[in-house]
Amino acid sequence: MRAVRLHGSRDMRLGQVADPTPGPGDALIRVRAVGVCGSDVHFYLDGRIGDAVAPIPFTLGHEFSGEIVELGRGADGPPVGTRVAVDPAIPCGSCGACREGNPNCCPDVRFAATPPVEGALSELYVHPAHLCVPLPEGMTHAEGALLEPLGVAIHATALAKVAPGGSVAVLGAGPIGLLVEQLALRSAGAVYVCDPIPERRAFAGRLGASAVCDPGAEDPTEWLLDRTDGLGVDVVVEAAWGAEAVDVAMRMARPAGRVVLVGIPREDVCSFTAGEARRKGLTIRMSRRMKAVYPQAIALIERGSVDLRSLITHRFVLEEAGTAFDLVASLGDGVCKAMIEIDLPV
Amino acid sequence: MRAVRLHGSRDMRLGQVADPTPGPGDALIRVRAVGVCGSDVHFYLDGRIGDAVAPIPFTLGHEFSGEIVELGRGADGPPVGTRVAVDPAIPCGSCGACREGNPNCCPDVRFAATPPVEGALSELYVHPAHLCVPLPEGMTHAEGALLEPLGVAIHATALAKVAPGGSVAVLGAGPIGLLVEQLALRSAGAVYVCDPIPERRAFAGRLGASAVCDPGAEDPTEWLLDRTDGLGVDVVVEAAWGAEAVDVAMRMARPAGRVVLVGIPREDVCSFTAGEARRKGLTIRMSRRMKAVYPQAIALIERGSVDLRSLITHRFVLEEAGTAFDLVASLGDGVCKAMIEIDLPV
Amino acid sequence: MRAVRLHGSRDMRLGQVADPTPGPGDALIRVRAVGVCGSDVHFYLDGRIGDAVAPIPFTLGHEFSGEIVELGRGADGPPVGTRVAVDPAIPCGSCGACREGNPNCCPDVRFAATPPVEGALSELYVHPAHLCVPLPEGMTHAEGALLEPLGVAIHATALAKVAPGGSVAVLGAGPIGLLVEQLALRSAGAVYVCDPIPERRAFAGRLGASAVCDPGAEDPTEWLLDRTDGLGVDVVVEAAWGAEAVDVAMRMARPAGRVVLVGIPREDVCSFTAGEARRKGLTIRMSRRMKAVYPQAIALIERGSVDLRSLITHRFVLEEAGTAFDLVASLGDGVCKAMIEIDLPV
Amino acid sequence: MRAVRLHGSRDMRLGQVADPTPGPGDALIRVRAVGVCGSDVHFYLDGRIGDAVAPIPFTLGHEFSGEIVELGRGADGPPVGTRVAVDPAIPCGSCGACREGNPNCCPDVRFAATPPVEGALSELYVHPAHLCVPLPEGMTHAEGALLEPLGVAIHATALAKVAPGGSVAVLGAGPIGLLVEQLALRSAGAVYVCDPIPERRAFAGRLGASAVCDPGAEDPTEWLLDRTDGLGVDVVVEAAWGAEAVDVAMRMARPAGRVVLVGIPREDVCSFTAGEARRKGLTIRMSRRMKAVYPQAIALIERGSVDLRSLITHRFVLEEAGTAFDLVASLGDGVCKAMIEIDLPV
Repeated sequence: MRAVRLHGSRDMRLGQVADPTPGPGDALIRVRAVGVCGSDVHFYLDGRIGDAVAPIPFTLGHEFSGEIVELGRGADGPPVGTRVAVDPAIPCGSCGACREGNPNCCPDVRFAATPPVEGALSELYVHPAHLCVPLPEGMTHAEGALLEPLGVAIHATALAKVAPGGSVAVLGAGPIGLLVEQLALRSAGAVYVCDPIPERRAFAGRLGASAVCDPGAEDPTEWLLDRTDGLGVDVVVEAAWGAEAVDVAMRMARPAGRVVLVGIPREDVCSFTAGEARRKGLTIRMSRRMKAVYPQAIALIERGSVDLRSLITHRFVLEEAGTAFDLVASLGDGVCKAMIEIDLPV
Repeated sequence: MRAVRLHGSRDMRLGQVADPTPGPGDALIRVRAVGVCGSDVHFYLDGRIGDAVAPIPFTLGHEFSGEIVELGRGADGPPVGTRVAVDPAIPCGSCGACREGNPNCCPDVRFAATPPVEGALSELYVHPAHLCVPLPEGMTHAEGALLEPLGVAIHATALAKVAPGGSVAVLGAGPIGLLVEQLALRSAGAVYVCDPIPERRAFAGRLGASAVCDPGAEDPTEWLLDRTDGLGVDVVVEAAWGAEAVDVAMRMARPAGRVVLVGIPREDVCSFTAGEARRKGLTIRMSRRMKAVYPQAIALIERGSVDLRSLITHRFVLEEAGTAFDLVASLGDGVCKAMIEIDLPV
Repeated sequence: MRAVRLHGSRDMRLGQVADPTPGPGDALIRVRAVGVCGSDVHFYLDGRIGDAVAPIPFTLGHEFSGEIVELGRGADGPPVGTRVAVDPAIPCGSCGACREGNPNCCPDVRFAATPPVEGALSELYVHPAHLCVPLPEGMTHAEGALLEPLGVAIHATALAKVAPGGSVAVLGAGPIGLLVEQLALRSAGAVYVCDPIPERRAFAGRLGASAVCDPGAEDPTEWLLDRTDGLGVDVVVEAAWGAEAVDVAMRMARPAGRVVLVGIPREDVCSFTAGEARRKGLTIRMSRRMKAVYPQAIALIERGSVDLRSLITHRFVLEEAGTAFDLVASLGDGVCKAMIEIDLPV
Repeated sequence: MRAVRLHGSRDMRLGQVADPTPGPGDALIRVRAVGVCGSDVHFYLDGRIGDAVAPIPFTLGHEFSGEIVELGRGADGPPVGTRVAVDPAIPCGSCGACREGNPNCCPDVRFAATPPVEGALSELYVHPAHLCVPLPEGMTHAEGALLEPLGVAIHATALAKVAPGGSVAVLGAGPIGLLVEQLALRSAGAVYVCDPIPERRAFAGRLGASAVCDPGAEDPTEWLLDRTDGLGVDVVVEAAWGAEAVDVAMRMARPAGRVVLVGIPREDVCSFTAGEARRKGLTIRMSRRMKAVYPQAIALIERGSVDLRSLITHRFVLEEAGTAFDLVASLGDGVCKAMIEIDLPV
């Protein structure tokens, strides 16, 4: 089959690799759509996320959907032919974290496109069948691929615990930030969004943000405090790239407020002003991937509560994967979500 | 001034009483709209709620709005002339419950229309000025009076902790139930509503309920389990009148689910099937009035997240107060919220 | 092998049954000690707990320990010869409750001595090897059998969330109540215990209860309110048998307090005074068995934080099982925990 | 009266100042014992904590007890002559944080020895009478002064939410760390303590620590992971001085674990490894002072659950205040708590 593989920083190549074979319990999936995620881009640029180092060559891609074309022995999942979205995490199921209901924190988790597990930017992919979730009728493969970031946003929003009528700030209006905004909007009394890219701010505004801020033009903390009687908001969700966002998030939270950190800064070391955070008695939640929330994600989409489609600003075919990654890395052309779609082979 | 007073079961009379005088910190309010609440109706029918017995005569009404016409010495509130909604609870501020942030559970709270404190079904009312919240431009007095039930619904929904995409059942589609539905809808993946009154079910459906049930026509527990693979929902909010609703709510909750009890059953003793509730390891929250959530309530209305206006199905003038109460007590004519409006005196 | 089986109400007989054989993943355990639990006694007296009906004949016993004498294929547990306590619950691992970390609420759980699964009052027992926990050196089999009720008490105490220096009431000083007392004592500022049996009250007092109450001699609610300025306690843990204990527990809790219901009343329907519970805005937690807490239980015993040994007031051999059950059912002779010990066969 | 005042870094002088006069609601307290706290030492060395800058001259001391010698008009507190401990925080009572039960996060709080409010290292002090808590018989003034750090430890331990039998690491065995250890010990299955000072480690060991670590001799993270199968502990409470303790704390927590930050590092900016913290999905709580927990603190002392007396390693009279501060700043001579006692004037 054809697969796109990373051979070094910004060096992605389409080539031929052996077809994978489904083992017991597995599904063989013909991949149809793969979203480009910020964490993929970390590997693309730096070859690593913190101490997770990608081998060379390595296939990226963990937001994906496709069709089941074969099932391994004893597979417990949808039948061959089903269009499915794939939950890319395979938690161990027996560690303390898994047993207490935090499989997203499993230290032994296997996860698509996280070394040593290969990703899905290829024509075929093997994954446990019970982690393949049927797409409802009318949902496209591209939307199906976005169940993964929607799941991440659902988890982060659950951690945010926005009270009905409460106030929220979202730092970063990329795909995750915009999805958190959509979910938070539903119960919040005010949602403030900061992002340096005009198209993203415009999108945030159309979704219903109370106000949007360009952090390049004004200090976001002052901007927010001006709008909240100097108090800050109940909850800040940080879904941006920069390490400094952590400190800004803590400054934006009100006394006894809550900060949820979702973003993966390129620099692994973050710093914050301890006195500020301590004086306010903040609660800080590190948001790690998601729990098993695909059913909830599908329910929200079917109710029309979330708009996934508009997040996709750019579409590519498999041969253009490098171009897609360069675009997301540059944050140019108003990019939000870049989607790589794979045609059925002739 | 004129006031409507309860002289016995179903015996309400309009009469003259002395004008009240604002003390230090108080506002004198010209009352403009008073909603009829289920708890008012308990007093109207039975003269009591549990061991809270109304003296005779007694004025009801705790959902109300009006204009400030005079301020007592040192009053810390909006200026004379302001249109305001009134938070009817005056917690003591110094007991353990108040100090830990649960003023709604203050055992020494004073509350409009809860003996021995008189209610607001009168032309003038005195209340602490700092509990008077200015109505935003464009909000009518009738809507302002509904901030109180909206606050009750906000509190109950906060206790419900519906996860994004989660499932909820609401028992009772009266004003509180319909407001909880509106709030829960925003983040839930599915909302099921039960009510015996066709107009209420229709309203629930228009708001976006996933399905509605007539408990007179089918067993609500079976109806719900049929729609949830036999599992039940994440959260059940009980906002109905009957004592049996407590047991139904527990049967509708999924294993490890959550039940929020908001309704005030006419019978003070409720029973439930212990084995069922224990086997599922349920969490049960008794929802008591609200905390200081009027600002959040106003934020939600200003964002258009809640429709208060459509809840008002019937309007009356002060002289018709008894008719209004009889209507709500009978649950006839598709009544949801009955509003009593008081014209400015000539 | 020999096994004790229930043939009808109060009719237990020792007889011969076929030896069980360990399947894949299983351990074959030579049973050495079995505690008599209140839930066993429900089956002994009534043949049922709620709608869980025991077939006839049926073997009881789910608090037990023994030695591993054989391992099935692929068994992942301690080696043959190890002395072990047994976690009697086998949750399904794949339902929503299991996946969210609430395996104790798994609707498909298999549990020793809960129909249709046979109990352990026999010479041999088969159970998944990974649920067998090695006893530390110096811990007797009888103590090992009490890890199960200790786990139940750990779970209930975790739900109770007693703040450091907070106040607790424990209704019922049977094995569970006394263990909850021991755990709660460590962080509470005051612990009040009610039980009708003088020996149990004396034991509670020796453990450090602030005060003990004989509910036969004085009204426990008044007794408690007298000692707490009329306010009640932060948390009430109900670990008694009677259905009326639920209402008493709610009356004893302070405004915004917490009630944990652990006991299994013989009557399946419990009732409570809704107004009282609602006015106080109570949180009620149904405590269902336990999560995977045997390691924590062993850590507490090894630290000397819990005294299990003194709970055992009466010891029996297998032939005396019926006498043991009659004793616990009668609550006579100051019984707390009755332990049935099985000698090694000659 | 005589008062000790800070005139610059490490420059404390005893001098005469005007006697203070109690206003309405106040008590005039003859100060009898003042503990030296780490935050006092920050002011002593640097003249500031973060952006809180002490004016010159300034009186320190916020852990104190004494006798009420006069009451202002309308004072609601213990009568003249009562020996009392003093809660040094005067929250505003009306901000959002206060109203939701987080007065410890009140941005408008007034707090003894926090600019602009003077501290208590003087013969007389004025404070609201309702914040003066009577000392039970047998409790010395020096112990009474330690109710404040005990309250801080109670708050931190409440945030730590140690499950029965769970595991805890405490970084820093100063007064707060040792008190947290004492409180956590009561429910934990294992408590690990790190401190560079041998006397403190010895004390921690005597209190019952499972193991103690000298961070000067071995890497504390490796030391801890060695003792916990490489997993880390359920909860880490950071009560040390160094900014690097924040990162160590996050490394010591298990996946889905909890970190409570109580310490006030001398450097205001802390940094941590984001990938590590995010991968584990940590919850981080900034512990800010305490809520109104003096009654709970007294209950714990009266039950004998906490040993305050042994924390006091050094005693001084008012004239020796500078020496006391130098000792605590140097961490020399195995100092834990230094207590300054003020004799009655002749």
